[in-house]
Amino acid sequence: MEFAKPLPTSLVKRYQGWRATTYSENKSWYMKLADEGQHPRGLIISCCDSRVNATSLFGADTGEFFIHRNIANLVPPYEPNRDYHGTSAAIEYAVNTLRVVNVIIMGHTQCGGVAGCHAMCSGQAPELEEDTSFVGRWMDILRPGFDRAVKSSDKEEEQVKELERQSVLVSLENLMTFPFVRDRVEAEDLTLHGISVNIKTGELSHYDPAQGQFIEI
Amino acid sequence: MEFAKPLPTSLVKRYQGWRATTYSENKSWYMKLADEGQHPRGLIISCCDSRVNATSLFGADTGEFFIHRNIANLVPPYEPNRDYHGTSAAIEYAVNTLRVVNVIIMGHTQCGGVAGCHAMCSGQAPELEEDTSFVGRWMDILRPGFDRAVKSSDKEEEQVKELERQSVLVSLENLMTFPFVRDRVEAEDLTLHGISVNIKTGELSHYDPAQGQFIEI
Amino acid sequence: MEFAKPLPTSLVKRYQGWRATTYSENKSWYMKLADEGQHPRGLIISCCDSRVNATSLFGADTGEFFIHRNIANLVPPYEPNRDYHGTSAAIEYAVNTLRVVNVIIMGHTQCGGVAGCHAMCSGQAPELEEDTSFVGRWMDILRPGFDRAVKSSDKEEEQVKELERQSVLVSLENLMTFPFVRDRVEAEDLTLHGISVNIKTGELSHYDPAQGQFIEI
Amino acid sequence: MEFAKPLPTSLVKRYQGWRATTYSENKSWYMKLADEGQHPRGLIISCCDSRVNATSLFGADTGEFFIHRNIANLVPPYEPNRDYHGTSAAIEYAVNTLRVVNVIIMGHTQCGGVAGCHAMCSGQAPELEEDTSFVGRWMDILRPGFDRAVKSSDKEEEQVKELERQSVLVSLENLMTFPFVRDRVEAEDLTLHGISVNIKTGELSHYDPAQGQFIEI
Repeated sequence: MEFAKPLPTSLVKRYQGWRATTYSENKSWYMKLADEGQHPRGLIISCCDSRVNATSLFGADTGEFFIHRNIANLVPPYEPNRDYHGTSAAIEYAVNTLRVVNVIIMGHTQCGGVAGCHAMCSGQAPELEEDTSFVGRWMDILRPGFDRAVKSSDKEEEQVKELERQSVLVSLENLMTFPFVRDRVEAEDLTLHGISVNIKTGELSHYDPAQGQFIEI
Repeated sequence: MEFAKPLPTSLVKRYQGWRATTYSENKSWYMKLADEGQHPRGLIISCCDSRVNATSLFGADTGEFFIHRNIANLVPPYEPNRDYHGTSAAIEYAVNTLRVVNVIIMGHTQCGGVAGCHAMCSGQAPELEEDTSFVGRWMDILRPGFDRAVKSSDKEEEQVKELERQSVLVSLENLMTFPFVRDRVEAEDLTLHGISVNIKTGELSHYDPAQGQFIEI
Repeated sequence: MEFAKPLPTSLVKRYQGWRATTYSENKSWYMKLADEGQHPRGLIISCCDSRVNATSLFGADTGEFFIHRNIANLVPPYEPNRDYHGTSAAIEYAVNTLRVVNVIIMGHTQCGGVAGCHAMCSGQAPELEEDTSFVGRWMDILRPGFDRAVKSSDKEEEQVKELERQSVLVSLENLMTFPFVRDRVEAEDLTLHGISVNIKTGELSHYDPAQGQFIEI
Repeated sequence: MEFAKPLPTSLVKRYQGWRATTYSENKSWYMKLADEGQHPRGLIISCCDSRVNATSLFGADTGEFFIHRNIANLVPPYEPNRDYHGTSAAIEYAVNTLRVVNVIIMGHTQCGGVAGCHAMCSGQAPELEEDTSFVGRWMDILRPGFDRAVKSSDKEEEQVKELERQSVLVSLENLMTFPFVRDRVEAEDLTLHGISVNIKTGELSHYDPAQGQFIEI
């Protein structure tokens, strides 16, 4: 492990500031959360993108949301085949063990993963089609959304925007292929939500099943 | 998609508050990040746990860190086999496309995933050994750390604490099995860091290669 | 006062969101309420329970209800003995000074105070019988309801449900021991209402004097 | 009980709207809160005033705060004398049973109770000095604050404003006379906070122990 390095000093200083302020003023809360365990209300599945921060957007307190972040906020279909399924494990733990009552899929505009998927599916990114491309294989999950995006418009720019929304919708559909999710949704014991944030304008949209489309809040 | 629900009103209100304050005062920054794309400094791989928030701990600004969160902050070994590898995809994208210069693996105390792994490996959690257990199969990644944890102490409590540290060390080792990570590390173009936060006391430790162990900062 | 702490930052941010949205859009209303004083329509006496929110349930606007909240929504009998009577003071101020026209006693299911009272009255909670137990002494107000609850059923679960309803009925009875309440009720200048909300199902019941029982709305 | 009346139709309609919207969209959350019990983070002690709504101001979710409301947000001194002490019971239940980690005393401007106290203490409200005045006897709790308010200014208007702040400070002092509060505060396991909201301007101040005064946020 000689390759690992100590934490850069600039981050050490920032941590020390956090401990003297945020931790210090919430010490009793952290102690309680450590002693009694976490009881989050919801699971948020969001993108790794550095410009998206669900905790800030929802003014969420420590302990309020269990948050899984992967590229393009994708949920793969239910497939219990002994492989490493980090996303499915997070869903299983949140839904079955923590008994969260909401699952929120949070997409966003200008998503690099979605843009790559559009390029790949339209034959413009052969490197993503390689077996060795982890990003390409991961974005395969979104392929069912590509056809719908292409049908939605002739313009590539519009198709990419639609594919961003599809990253939320395909994930919601795949969520329902998990028997333990479907059972709780049908028992009205768990609700699923699809939202998308516009990085540039700060606008948030949510999927409205009554209108069958995303509506700006 | 009739099963999806609009966002609960309480979260809508919180979002509206965010937009009128945080977004509003940083609008030009969000616009720039949207127009020019993200240029994060580092990749943080952290747990989904609702009590852990790297952004807060590092006082990180929007755009500063690309953050992947999964159960127990695990990195699987390099295995380009066409499966869905969400974690490997996040690493590939951060290291190869975004060209981050740091990868930080951030563990924590009281980790439910690690406790489950210890129970499973010591034969006390048969349900996690089932093929259909996504959490169990995901925690298989940490099995190499279990033997070391057992050797470290006779007391189960101490073993679990060691296994929490091992969740960081095994991930660092697995990171180095990715050729594109190893190449950049060897070229001194990328640094890897292992840290662990104590939820209760707020203390942060980092792995110090000189001493071969975690040192409290 | 060195023991007091500033408000935690997470709540500061939430407040700032409120001020930039809810306050901002209702500014003229808040200014009018500040300049002209409050003129609430009714007094609601409700439980402190974090799961009960009369303002939300009645879609109440700022200024509409004067709300007193104590454990188990209890009204003690009229007893002007120079002690600190917070509930009686709230009733006196609402009925005599603000001249509200409704007093609503709002009970709820799964009330911890009521469950404690049942345990105490059936000899299962000696700690609540201590002189030093504020909760125990406060729940003494509900003792007259315990006998009726016991008569209503042999099953403890049903008795507790009846005792929840009795917390509303005993309070209504005690309200009528206040001369200034009784006078206005008899002058048909003030009405009293007893309601109970089921936390789990969201159902609201109200006491119907014609049927002598609670009726689901 | 023939004096009780059914709920007015206008409130029935509002409730029905709440159940079809807010309850409906949060059904799974209410069910969980009913099944698992409440786990609020903090206790808020606030005034009954219809113009003050802590839940709205903090964008609080159902289940987040245990809320006691009485006239002028007062806490009496610790006095376990077998009387009905509704406020002390609420504190005991929140601190000892629910194990909240914050107690927030929330005052406000234009408080009728505080104005009455100032009038009473300066001899301008003999009716409040009667033994039979519940409001007067309740406001006796604030008498120690009156002397400080008088010393702070020659102008009555300024004295009343200071007395509003004193309603928070006297309550904080009295909180510390409860042994079970003091013990947890000294163990850094519970924090106390004093805040005051300006009804007219929406500004929130908090007591800053470093400066020994209220500071606008």
